[in-house]
Amino acid sequence: MTHDTNRQVHLASRPNGPPARSNFEVVEAPVPEPTNNEVLVAARYLSVDPYMRLLMQQRWPVGEVMRAGVVGEVVDSRADGFAEGDLVTGSGALQELDWAEYTLATPEELASLDPDLGPLSVHLGVLGMTGRTAYFGMLDVGEPTPGDTVVVSGAAGAVGSVAGQLARLAGGRVVGTAGSDAKVEWLTDELGFDAAVNYKTTDDVEAALADACPDGVDVYLDRVGGEITDAVASFANAGARFAICGQIAHYNEEEPVGPRLLSRIWTARIEKFTVSQFEPRFRAATRRLARLVESGDLVYRETVAEGIERSPEAFLGLFAGENVGKQLVEV
Amino acid sequence: MTHDTNRQVHLASRPNGPPARSNFEVVEAPVPEPTNNEVLVAARYLSVDPYMRLLMQQRWPVGEVMRAGVVGEVVDSRADGFAEGDLVTGSGALQELDWAEYTLATPEELASLDPDLGPLSVHLGVLGMTGRTAYFGMLDVGEPTPGDTVVVSGAAGAVGSVAGQLARLAGGRVVGTAGSDAKVEWLTDELGFDAAVNYKTTDDVEAALADACPDGVDVYLDRVGGEITDAVASFANAGARFAICGQIAHYNEEEPVGPRLLSRIWTARIEKFTVSQFEPRFRAATRRLARLVESGDLVYRETVAEGIERSPEAFLGLFAGENVGKQLVEV
Repeated sequence: MTHDTNRQVHLASRPNGPPARSNFEVVEAPVPEPTNNEVLVAARYLSVDPYMRLLMQQRWPVGEVMRAGVVGEVVDSRADGFAEGDLVTGSGALQELDWAEYTLATPEELASLDPDLGPLSVHLGVLGMTGRTAYFGMLDVGEPTPGDTVVVSGAAGAVGSVAGQLARLAGGRVVGTAGSDAKVEWLTDELGFDAAVNYKTTDDVEAALADACPDGVDVYLDRVGGEITDAVASFANAGARFAICGQIAHYNEEEPVGPRLLSRIWTARIEKFTVSQFEPRFRAATRRLARLVESGDLVYRETVAEGIERSPEAFLGLFAGENVGKQLVEV
Repeated sequence: MTHDTNRQVHLASRPNGPPARSNFEVVEAPVPEPTNNEVLVAARYLSVDPYMRLLMQQRWPVGEVMRAGVVGEVVDSRADGFAEGDLVTGSGALQELDWAEYTLATPEELASLDPDLGPLSVHLGVLGMTGRTAYFGMLDVGEPTPGDTVVVSGAAGAVGSVAGQLARLAGGRVVGTAGSDAKVEWLTDELGFDAAVNYKTTDDVEAALADACPDGVDVYLDRVGGEITDAVASFANAGARFAICGQIAHYNEEEPVGPRLLSRIWTARIEKFTVSQFEPRFRAATRRLARLVESGDLVYRETVAEGIERSPEAFLGLFAGENVGKQLVEV
């Protein structure tokens, strides 16, 4: 369980346009020793997510270890409240610890996990940051009511796949966009989406979405931005709610294309949100999501890469749409 | 009081780009006679407003009389509930009757006015559609709290001038944009704006607004769109509220430029609203606005054109920024 070295993923250089493997460096460091009030956590799963692209550009220092969502196990503790064998994650909304095999953390940086809620990996996915993003984004921001037409872009991803199912459970008619026929099939056959559009193989995405939404669009949960957002704006109903969190199509662009077609909508609420604004309600959301998973009303899929050395490629794969559901790295 | 003819403003042709005088025709028609359940209203004031540009393009039939906000007097009635001499306006949120000297209306199309609330013209302005747009747009959509920085574009217009003052009364620090030095002076010297920027004479509007908003922007009431919105998005604070109603800079454009810079804001709520969504609360808003006018806390200005034949020019003047405060036509 304990290695001699602690492999860490460092930011080698800032991305200039799309991120590339050369922006990352896997570095071997010694495993740190906890001292007073410190806890040593061994990562079991890491989460790679599109938002990290922005932090690579703007926040994380070059030449240092980056951060990632982590679930792991306490392997050594010099702090009250945490003991060897405890299952933990980062205490922040993004569940971040070091993007590394080991993190030395203070108790304030850690949150305990309830192993009864499901296997360890789900605490990063459907019961973690992405599941909660879907939960609050759809239910609090999107507010679907029975009969509403709900469009989810990036619908086969970690957030979109959960958000679409929550909209269905709220009585919505759910239409997704995804980038492969296999994903489209998964959405309609297994997740209960009413329709799905493969935006990569459809000549006219706007026409295909309009066909799939004969009554217009009432709720749009957007993970993508760009032409799909433009299309939805063209046939959004008065009073439509756009829930925007992460615009994967924009992260690598210079030219902003936000939700620019507001002039086509009579009234609309467009909310750009982040899951952290709902932090006081995380516990309730997690419990509700866990119950839905247990009852079988909410299904999820994980795409798991093996080994921390594969995590840069797993991250890059997000932008190529290689993941179905939650992209994880098993450490 | 009664004329032989009823001069009406017809839509001669749809605007192609900016509206022009040739899109309008003033037509003489006979004064209609009310029959069973009809009321004849003589317009005293007409309201011309930017939104009418959209209806000229999309809704009103060519060759027929257009609609405008009207306050007027009943001159003949064959309906219960309305008698000669009653002061009335259109019952809808836009207060529309015919864009004409006379309208034949059913009781359902009319609302009575309370003459105690102020002179007749204010029922189209500060106590009418534009005042209520300001009221709900600022207080319900923008939700300024004490200490917030509030930016209002088109601040010297009918909506902006009222909205900015309401934000000030709510404890906000209010910054406006306007298109002349005289308007800027009016905003800061008479309406109590903390700062105002003349966007026509300022080389770098973004820098000027950034200077005027050292603590970022919390609320943005947008009447204009375009580069001012882009600038505000660049230094909006997390959790900012953008209240968008009418985008005068966009009405004449082919290329949409909406609020496209959402990627620059961490979290934001952008709401495109129309005053009609708040119709159940109009009465309370009107009373509150009337009290603020009476106490002197809310001041207003009107720009009044004389004669219905001048109303097309009064409308066109809105796009050139010729009005200060509410643009009216005295019939």
